[in-house]
Amino acid sequence: METITIKDIAKLCGVGVSTVSRAINNHPDINNETKTMIINTIKQYNYVPNNSARNLKRVEAKAIAILVKGITNPFFSSMIKVMEEVIEEKKYSLVLHHVEGNEDEVDVALELVKEKRLRGILFLGGYFTHTEEKLRQLNVPFVISTISATGCVEQQMYSSVSVDDFEESYKMVQYLCELGHRNIAILASREEDRSIGRLRLDGYMKALSDHKIPFRKELVLPMDTSIEEYSMKNGYVVMKEFLQKKIPCTAVYAIADSLAIGACRAILESGKKVPEDFSVAGFDGIEAARFYSPSITTIEQPVEDLARESISTLFEMIKNKNHHVHKIFKANLIIRESTGKPTCL
Amino acid sequence: METITIKDIAKLCGVGVSTVSRAINNHPDINNETKTMIINTIKQYNYVPNNSARNLKRVEAKAIAILVKGITNPFFSSMIKVMEEVIEEKKYSLVLHHVEGNEDEVDVALELVKEKRLRGILFLGGYFTHTEEKLRQLNVPFVISTISATGCVEQQMYSSVSVDDFEESYKMVQYLCELGHRNIAILASREEDRSIGRLRLDGYMKALSDHKIPFRKELVLPMDTSIEEYSMKNGYVVMKEFLQKKIPCTAVYAIADSLAIGACRAILESGKKVPEDFSVAGFDGIEAARFYSPSITTIEQPVEDLARESISTLFEMIKNKNHHVHKIFKANLIIRESTGKPTCL
Repeated sequence: METITIKDIAKLCGVGVSTVSRAINNHPDINNETKTMIINTIKQYNYVPNNSARNLKRVEAKAIAILVKGITNPFFSSMIKVMEEVIEEKKYSLVLHHVEGNEDEVDVALELVKEKRLRGILFLGGYFTHTEEKLRQLNVPFVISTISATGCVEQQMYSSVSVDDFEESYKMVQYLCELGHRNIAILASREEDRSIGRLRLDGYMKALSDHKIPFRKELVLPMDTSIEEYSMKNGYVVMKEFLQKKIPCTAVYAIADSLAIGACRAILESGKKVPEDFSVAGFDGIEAARFYSPSITTIEQPVEDLARESISTLFEMIKNKNHHVHKIFKANLIIRESTGKPTCL
Repeated sequence: METITIKDIAKLCGVGVSTVSRAINNHPDINNETKTMIINTIKQYNYVPNNSARNLKRVEAKAIAILVKGITNPFFSSMIKVMEEVIEEKKYSLVLHHVEGNEDEVDVALELVKEKRLRGILFLGGYFTHTEEKLRQLNVPFVISTISATGCVEQQMYSSVSVDDFEESYKMVQYLCELGHRNIAILASREEDRSIGRLRLDGYMKALSDHKIPFRKELVLPMDTSIEEYSMKNGYVVMKEFLQKKIPCTAVYAIADSLAIGACRAILESGKKVPEDFSVAGFDGIEAARFYSPSITTIEQPVEDLARESISTLFEMIKNKNHHVHKIFKANLIIRESTGKPTCL
């Protein structure tokens, strides 16, 4: 695996380095015979011309970071794939960085900004509740994606792309209420969540209230913090524990499809049926929800649109410092087999 | 978002840049009062000390690329997460790159090597069947991970970490044969695959032959090339088509859990039962297979071990050019609800 250099090629051909360079770069000032000989030698020795300093600088200087909480969440994998394609097209490089559940994503971003020549940051997932003071330290443009704007930070500081988590959550719970369910449990995020988990919980509460259904704390089931968040296992463990309590309930709304799948499994394992004994609904629109049996009713987020808009907004911000948008996409309620009218009211 | 520089801090404090630098770097040669004033000013203006040239060079020069075919495959997401953690610990940066199904990963790698200061490459997934001549052009160490070595390339050129796809596949089909199945369909990769898909198919054929079951071409169901490879949808579409042909069959072995999930859905949708009418088995050990209903019998790959070994081998190769290993891990046959004895023999 000895590296062949431009000097070696020059030596082999009995010419100077500048002549080899002219041959590689299609410079007119070289005779054809010499050029052919050099090109053949390059091929023979598998020499890879190093577009070197200039190129390295150009490419390395331009990077976009994606900071993602929950890298194993299939919903994010699909988004990252689309974003990556666009980043490549634009000749930027992608720095993908996973943020641990207990890490602060802005601290992680600040570290990255120090270390790399970042031109922009995309935050994907997580609990985005930071002070304006702290966000000011991030002196590169950033877009928070699939996380509803938190409201406590000046909107001109950043851009955001998401669905309306409150509205979409309301839509799902309204649908369950209209089927006739009155005891609807929610597989929610941890209590201190002030981001999408909170908004989806708020949407749930508002829908109950509009249907004159009293809110009952024992039907709010927060994720188990000792297990990976938003994992199928988390939904499974939490639902299993809930079932043992025998609290009257005919429907379960999970704030993520992964949790809904785990919950279905816990219900089916206990000998109950979905949707006959429990209707189960999710949120996100991941592939596994579609192919589960029963297939799972969900709020389908427009993954492709969200990803494309996030990345194109970021590139706009890189071009124009004062550009910023807060774009909300519509999501779709997809009714599948896992929900139905309650059999025992 | 105006950037505060070290010069601004110096000006604000009425000191020289070198004094600010001494304050930041805890240099002993600065009086405490001046130091406190500088640190307070830094805090007040949210100045982020730029560990600058030295740091940038050190960090940017060292990158590891992961080239992955099938980025949305949950099996790879789990592996990438582990690899990323190790790469960060080692203070390298990660360049994650998705390779399209129709792209040649070595061509992509050659482009990356030209553009970035890569120290090593991890190939994840894909069909790794390249000529030795071509691989020689990659003058950085590389590890091919979860792809069985192809055999036609000198083993000293690279390292590999995987399970024994032939053996593990044999183990699963042997298990199905011993349950009494004789008409076992295989959801296989596309025909021209000479990598893991081929090895798993070979394991299937050998197990049939050892059980005196004749190989029947009509039971080999290659993926639909018009749909994303290894997706649940692919398994679903291929199985649905197969069911319409009414070819006698009591078990389906899919070379990936994602395909097995799609196949289960197609079977259940057609009004048939799993495992009563069709036993279904997968390969990989993804979370969705565990929480599916019925839970899916599979070959569980040791994701954590595979990922850690791949990355630590790569770092060994970076330290020592002549180091190379070809490590095979054992996988586990996990028997779940989706397989059983055939009811009609």
